[in-house]
Amino acid sequence: MAGNTFGEIFRVTTWGESHGPALGAVIDGCPPRVSLTAADIEAELARRRPGVQAHASSRREPDKVQILSGVFENLTTGTPLSLIIYNRDVKSQDYEDLREVFRPGHGDITFQAKYGIRDHRGGGRASARETVARVAAGAVAQKILDRENIRVLAYTLELGGVRAGRLEEDRIWDNPFFCPDPDAVPAMAARVQEVKDRRDSLGGLVEIRVRGCPAGLGEPVFDKLDAALAQAMMSVGAVKGVEIGAGFPAARMLGSEHNDPITVQGFTTNNAGGILAGISNGDEIVLRAAVKPIPSIPREQQTIDLAGQPRTITVKGRHDISAIPRIVPVLAAMVRLTLADFLLRQKALQ
Amino acid sequence: MAGNTFGEIFRVTTWGESHGPALGAVIDGCPPRVSLTAADIEAELARRRPGVQAHASSRREPDKVQILSGVFENLTTGTPLSLIIYNRDVKSQDYEDLREVFRPGHGDITFQAKYGIRDHRGGGRASARETVARVAAGAVAQKILDRENIRVLAYTLELGGVRAGRLEEDRIWDNPFFCPDPDAVPAMAARVQEVKDRRDSLGGLVEIRVRGCPAGLGEPVFDKLDAALAQAMMSVGAVKGVEIGAGFPAARMLGSEHNDPITVQGFTTNNAGGILAGISNGDEIVLRAAVKPIPSIPREQQTIDLAGQPRTITVKGRHDISAIPRIVPVLAAMVRLTLADFLLRQKALQ
Amino acid sequence: MAGNTFGEIFRVTTWGESHGPALGAVIDGCPPRVSLTAADIEAELARRRPGVQAHASSRREPDKVQILSGVFENLTTGTPLSLIIYNRDVKSQDYEDLREVFRPGHGDITFQAKYGIRDHRGGGRASARETVARVAAGAVAQKILDRENIRVLAYTLELGGVRAGRLEEDRIWDNPFFCPDPDAVPAMAARVQEVKDRRDSLGGLVEIRVRGCPAGLGEPVFDKLDAALAQAMMSVGAVKGVEIGAGFPAARMLGSEHNDPITVQGFTTNNAGGILAGISNGDEIVLRAAVKPIPSIPREQQTIDLAGQPRTITVKGRHDISAIPRIVPVLAAMVRLTLADFLLRQKALQ
Amino acid sequence: MAGNTFGEIFRVTTWGESHGPALGAVIDGCPPRVSLTAADIEAELARRRPGVQAHASSRREPDKVQILSGVFENLTTGTPLSLIIYNRDVKSQDYEDLREVFRPGHGDITFQAKYGIRDHRGGGRASARETVARVAAGAVAQKILDRENIRVLAYTLELGGVRAGRLEEDRIWDNPFFCPDPDAVPAMAARVQEVKDRRDSLGGLVEIRVRGCPAGLGEPVFDKLDAALAQAMMSVGAVKGVEIGAGFPAARMLGSEHNDPITVQGFTTNNAGGILAGISNGDEIVLRAAVKPIPSIPREQQTIDLAGQPRTITVKGRHDISAIPRIVPVLAAMVRLTLADFLLRQKALQ
Repeated sequence: MAGNTFGEIFRVTTWGESHGPALGAVIDGCPPRVSLTAADIEAELARRRPGVQAHASSRREPDKVQILSGVFENLTTGTPLSLIIYNRDVKSQDYEDLREVFRPGHGDITFQAKYGIRDHRGGGRASARETVARVAAGAVAQKILDRENIRVLAYTLELGGVRAGRLEEDRIWDNPFFCPDPDAVPAMAARVQEVKDRRDSLGGLVEIRVRGCPAGLGEPVFDKLDAALAQAMMSVGAVKGVEIGAGFPAARMLGSEHNDPITVQGFTTNNAGGILAGISNGDEIVLRAAVKPIPSIPREQQTIDLAGQPRTITVKGRHDISAIPRIVPVLAAMVRLTLADFLLRQKALQ
Repeated sequence: MAGNTFGEIFRVTTWGESHGPALGAVIDGCPPRVSLTAADIEAELARRRPGVQAHASSRREPDKVQILSGVFENLTTGTPLSLIIYNRDVKSQDYEDLREVFRPGHGDITFQAKYGIRDHRGGGRASARETVARVAAGAVAQKILDRENIRVLAYTLELGGVRAGRLEEDRIWDNPFFCPDPDAVPAMAARVQEVKDRRDSLGGLVEIRVRGCPAGLGEPVFDKLDAALAQAMMSVGAVKGVEIGAGFPAARMLGSEHNDPITVQGFTTNNAGGILAGISNGDEIVLRAAVKPIPSIPREQQTIDLAGQPRTITVKGRHDISAIPRIVPVLAAMVRLTLADFLLRQKALQ
Repeated sequence: MAGNTFGEIFRVTTWGESHGPALGAVIDGCPPRVSLTAADIEAELARRRPGVQAHASSRREPDKVQILSGVFENLTTGTPLSLIIYNRDVKSQDYEDLREVFRPGHGDITFQAKYGIRDHRGGGRASARETVARVAAGAVAQKILDRENIRVLAYTLELGGVRAGRLEEDRIWDNPFFCPDPDAVPAMAARVQEVKDRRDSLGGLVEIRVRGCPAGLGEPVFDKLDAALAQAMMSVGAVKGVEIGAGFPAARMLGSEHNDPITVQGFTTNNAGGILAGISNGDEIVLRAAVKPIPSIPREQQTIDLAGQPRTITVKGRHDISAIPRIVPVLAAMVRLTLADFLLRQKALQ
Repeated sequence: MAGNTFGEIFRVTTWGESHGPALGAVIDGCPPRVSLTAADIEAELARRRPGVQAHASSRREPDKVQILSGVFENLTTGTPLSLIIYNRDVKSQDYEDLREVFRPGHGDITFQAKYGIRDHRGGGRASARETVARVAAGAVAQKILDRENIRVLAYTLELGGVRAGRLEEDRIWDNPFFCPDPDAVPAMAARVQEVKDRRDSLGGLVEIRVRGCPAGLGEPVFDKLDAALAQAMMSVGAVKGVEIGAGFPAARMLGSEHNDPITVQGFTTNNAGGILAGISNGDEIVLRAAVKPIPSIPREQQTIDLAGQPRTITVKGRHDISAIPRIVPVLAAMVRLTLADFLLRQKALQ
């Protein structure tokens, strides 16, 4: 109801603020006898950690996770998993002057409107730091997907207008932009530096491909698999658009172009993006998310304060130039959480 | 769980197949003492009725609704509303040859994979006919929005590549494409005729604007208002992409361009599309959906049958050339259902 | 949320008022390929029909059910089942004088307090007529239980203080009190006649036994199987108490008496009532519900009206002397709905 | 779904095992700007702490709570509250011999049947230790109830057959049995000592009264307020029966006796127990729970092991003689959680 829980059977509830003592996730509904250690989760957390990229936030968090419940002798027991990640490198004083001023492009003004109170330090619950709990939970979800050999591949398709021209899977993690096209990396780096010098920020596109997803996942009508994935991805802070398969360009295609012919060997094209009528068709699931530029920029901007008076603000603190690439593992996590839940939902039908 | 329910407090459960005796919706959680008659609902149903547009399906349904419960002397009582719409003009024999063959671009093959059984007649539950129950429920949701003077404006932004150049609100309903730009109507008509002559089908873009939405709606983290709207719109059959505010083009903007400055008079721009950090900011909410071309085309297509053998198919039956404009009131309904639910969720906080 | 839905995976939503045109249930989450016909449901409806017992309400309803969706060629399809039962024998004028007066022991006064409006005719949504939809849905749930050979046995343990001394299963349905002890039937009949002559009403106890339930159903902590069953039974209008296994007398037992020793052949006693720590243990599940006397009595009673003024009332209309035996199939239905849901929940774990 | 979450709007998810590092609760949906400190919670935790009663478990836990999120400057912010209570006095070696043997009357055998794995140490998730998180959450719920001046009074009505003869509210907490009748305390003490000497255990009855509850709470049909309370109380480990108002004895009353006449001053009697047709009527809510004797007894009992072989067992470890009185604050907490949720649900209607 209050929106901090995701999933129906594999249910994740997250909690925690940017400058509180810790953040965490409780996972209820994880099947028993799944092998799980903190290391399984930390490997994924490492990918969203600030500071691994040259242009990223200078906040340093080791992002160690502790599993407080639900695991006995390295196997899940079917009872709730409680995951906790402590905040270490908190510099709340950086935010003291934000107590009464709303940063443009941030949730400061809407949290105040909604609740009449807010933890202004680092964005509180609206901080990107919140996503650490999603990534931790997503790593557990992947354990469920592993049982069915489902893989989720996520990467930067475009950054600041520089587009990856091809997909080399094994090159994604070897560059600071999680870009699958090694040839695009230098241009991305140049674009980032240029914008950093201008004290501005960048957006881009993330693409996600799910391989090995069996046909039959997804619930028709409101809980279509693509609808659930759209919610999952749009629930990540900076995402302004989501598309599947042919996506927005499908609006200008003809039916004879867009329909994917069916053969004994499978679909000859994949404009559907792996989902038909809300149910996976066994083909690769292909999604893209549009990521807006990060709103925290070290420039003077026009705003108002709590009293409704005009103010100017220059956002300090440690900020990335772009939500990309750190958003890449976050979006992958959301896709994993969605699929794990729908896998279990499908089991209940049988 | 099985996905035929939408909403948390204002909860709508729909049922019914294209060629069954009836379709309907049960609404649980509608507040008491809201004035409601069948006529309130039928006015909205009329807008999605097949046959009102020149190029639309020739199936004729009067779409009268009966309110079977939850209303006493024209006021809601707080108990569940049961709405029923009977199917009249059913020609199931048109579909007999689809019993064993999967239509490309349709859910035939995925329903079979999921359930091991399907009602093949007219697409069964996967038919666009299903949306009649959504529109009926959406009309009830609008009654809740009326109490707060919230208006939902939906229209065709683009059809077959022909784009509306301006928004004249009072002209939307006076043309067969629900196009807000009278000057674009002839080009749309020509485009539709051209594609109809080629026995093909078209897609397009629908834009939705919500006016009067108070700041504070939306639940941070997973149930962000934009995430819920994305699910709502993507849950409608033909939608392949959803964006909010600046949308996909935001991926190529700079932070200094994208951030909406805040002034005493409000936001000077609306790249956010009325939602910040998942919570409405009081500005106009602006969304767009990409609609794929209708998959039913009277041309020979390649497919397989239940036994996995190759087949060709030429889809007969009565079909639209485009899901637009009939999808326009359906998307409006989904936005209404979402907002009514979030309004009530917000009340619970206080 | 508004409470007209029961279950998590096998989800039933009911609607309808005593004097509206119809009542019904929508079942979402029924697995596909379950054989189902109206006759399957009507057999169970017949058991709660008014008028089958000598002392019962003289309202006559044929209680035919129509399945409006979700079944194709006598098999469920996995899409929502919509069941509808029309009201025929409605005499609303009997209730006109209740428009402004609250009947003692009824929900009139609380519905008014909650909603500020109510359908006073026959109790509206608070009428026992509402349970017809539960029984219909329960008959579908039994189809799921049949797949696992789970049987639900329900009967009158006590009526007006007259207790059944033994359980003869095949005699339950051959007497008008659903009493499993043929020797107790004449005393029950005499007790009912005596109270009827005094223009008063009676309560009693219903016992339910579930046979063949596998070990492992039930979710620890809040959704314990016994907790869910307690909610299920207490949600039926006249029930004032629920107990499992040894029940209230367990409060005076010693641990050494109450613990059921475990042997290779199973438990030697069943004080647990088939559920340990909220999870079924494979033994017979044994529950009892306390049923209050029907509040509608043809005697003058003291009350107030809508304006808060003192009034006297003599309830007219057609009423039973006791909720027993008609409540017996209703309680059985609630147990069936609970078990079907927990069976499917357990599948999702695997 | 997996049952570790309670409530719809005020939603509590608990986690943790008896011998894990910690237990906790996440509360999502707590309204903003409620004053809250750890001390508010610890006051309530102190009442269920082992070791405060002469006859209680010798395990010593300080039960300090830490609020990890959702509170800013001693006010709730509307974001999730994460409460954590560390386990300190853990003696897992006491339980090593229970790894392969099922204790009679415990969930050992059913957890094994359900999950195929279990944390045997101290009962794992099935331990009464789990309830510490409920009590912590219940203390937060009381803060919501405080805003409406709703009080929850819970006490021991009967212990080992010794019944409290009257209710002196201010004496409840001044004796080790939470007994509201000072004259019954010596007999309770004698009964406890007698049973302790016999190395056996005791059950009893707990009564709960809610004062100040406004009329109108509760959702008709499945989520009746009494049904929800029944689930809430039956979800506590040792509870075998629940009744409201007149309860089981109502089964032997006549309608003319049971109906509570309504006057301008209110109801003249309260057989309903404050709830009519599932909705609170403004009168005192009166509930009772039957508590079974604690199954852990230091006597030889017959059982089987993991391999299905016969075994005898003498349960060691530190155990109470009775779940009473420590269950008293737990049941109060469950009632608080239920009422806080229904209060917020009612707001959403308006």
